[in-house]
Amino acid sequence: MNFVKAFAPATVANVACGFDIFGFAVKEPGDTVELRRRDEPGIVITDITGDEGRLPRNAEKNSVTGVMLYLLKHLGITDFGCEVVLHKNMPLGSGMGSSAASAVAGVVAINEMLGKPLTRQELLPFAMEGERIASGSAHADNVGPSLLGGFVVIRSYNPLDIFTIPVPGDLYCTLVHPDIEINTKDARFILRNEVSLKNTIAQMGNVAGLVAGLMQADYDLISRSMVDVIIEPVRSILIPQFKEVKQAAIDHGALGCSISGSGPSLFALSRGVENAQKAGAAMKDTFADAGIASSLHVSSINQGGAVVLTE
Amino acid sequence: MNFVKAFAPATVANVACGFDIFGFAVKEPGDTVELRRRDEPGIVITDITGDEGRLPRNAEKNSVTGVMLYLLKHLGITDFGCEVVLHKNMPLGSGMGSSAASAVAGVVAINEMLGKPLTRQELLPFAMEGERIASGSAHADNVGPSLLGGFVVIRSYNPLDIFTIPVPGDLYCTLVHPDIEINTKDARFILRNEVSLKNTIAQMGNVAGLVAGLMQADYDLISRSMVDVIIEPVRSILIPQFKEVKQAAIDHGALGCSISGSGPSLFALSRGVENAQKAGAAMKDTFADAGIASSLHVSSINQGGAVVLTE
Repeated sequence: MNFVKAFAPATVANVACGFDIFGFAVKEPGDTVELRRRDEPGIVITDITGDEGRLPRNAEKNSVTGVMLYLLKHLGITDFGCEVVLHKNMPLGSGMGSSAASAVAGVVAINEMLGKPLTRQELLPFAMEGERIASGSAHADNVGPSLLGGFVVIRSYNPLDIFTIPVPGDLYCTLVHPDIEINTKDARFILRNEVSLKNTIAQMGNVAGLVAGLMQADYDLISRSMVDVIIEPVRSILIPQFKEVKQAAIDHGALGCSISGSGPSLFALSRGVENAQKAGAAMKDTFADAGIASSLHVSSINQGGAVVLTE
Repeated sequence: MNFVKAFAPATVANVACGFDIFGFAVKEPGDTVELRRRDEPGIVITDITGDEGRLPRNAEKNSVTGVMLYLLKHLGITDFGCEVVLHKNMPLGSGMGSSAASAVAGVVAINEMLGKPLTRQELLPFAMEGERIASGSAHADNVGPSLLGGFVVIRSYNPLDIFTIPVPGDLYCTLVHPDIEINTKDARFILRNEVSLKNTIAQMGNVAGLVAGLMQADYDLISRSMVDVIIEPVRSILIPQFKEVKQAAIDHGALGCSISGSGPSLFALSRGVENAQKAGAAMKDTFADAGIASSLHVSSINQGGAVVLTE
């Protein structure tokens, strides 16, 4: 195979109450990686679009190609060579799993070009390594859903124990990205290392409620469980108009609304595409009222995850 | 109706990872309350068996009758009178929801005698008041399952939001009560008020895993999720032979084992009654090896909760 193109979707990590344990994929936006085999060994980045020149072009420092090199090393392959083009279709530091989507597209593409030596599940630790390169820690809550699709639960990181749960077919996600930027490292840095037992109990109750609500298609329970008493109160301080935008979403049909990943994007979940669109318009308008431009994406939950676009 | 007899089952609260949010009812043991109407207003305790004389005989101080008085007051009934007999079939301070079973049997019995003015769900806050009288705080993780049956999740205490989730039919509970006593207030007192964010994340992962595992009848996932990194490490210090008994349960067929409520009883969950019995025998033997007598109960999950035994 001399040419492979792969797409990996954006993702919403945390999903209100499930810090570091919940994530789901959307249908768009997403990043695309193109690989073209070359005769000489080694991986060369020939182009990156959509990053405004901000991602490293050095193959070892760029998380997409860094992950590919890590995978080749693991497989003991030394004579492989390819050229890489990365199309970034979402902003960096957006909270939509931008670095995860790129890394996932990269590992899926190279695995395809190599003849699929690894399964999707087996690719997970490699894609997580991309997160480590990009953000300093190997989280799975964006990489997992971008790679596997669906609503992902990470029960444990050590050992890694990840599974998907069914979600109602009529559940739609609204993603709104305000044109401001938060560094993922900063967003993690401001979190407290200790949580009150009371808040831990409240959060566990919501985690249990969200899992049960999604599995039973109980929209009321989903709505009541989209409460984050630990992370949102801290991180929302970094997002101008957070309360107003969240309220606008809920007032216009959303089941709930919270920060997507480490922000500044906000996500809402709604029953039906119309509610998701109404909520999105209200969120965008509320940002606009404060002079903040934003981009809007509405889609159902992506059940398949990353896809190879070439035959 | 001049005579009512009601039974309310023992319960396992917390269920490893779900401190204050999970609980389920077993089929036995359980407490029985008998009410006999009398002409004069007022509630009188005529007998309590099985408590070794330790429960208050004063109707206002006893949690069973205290709850009945609270219910009558709420309903605005001033002319009602009855004699109460309480049969305690489990030890006090056992971690099997002893006070909850008594309070639940009490509210179910008086509600029946009054012609069922309240639904089961509506009785919950009154039964919780019994827990407040007995232990100082109004928890629902024993009262909820004893009253409603099944595997109960308390998503929120304020406002109270409680629901049940389906469990596999082949899931059995082993309850072993060592002949030592822990005061519920003490068991709560030794807990730290702060939890590390890392442990909160681990516990949330297990909460999500246990809910999904029970709902999907995924016994492996149930087993992997029966991990408590917050409460068990602290409370187990109060229970002699804890580690050995837990290990014996797991070595002899249990999916997992942890402290029942605030202890000292231990519970195990197993797939099939034979595994539950084998695990129970091993747990009992391990306590016996250390010179500790214990009582053993094996039953499936009680799906109905408290029952009225009179017609």
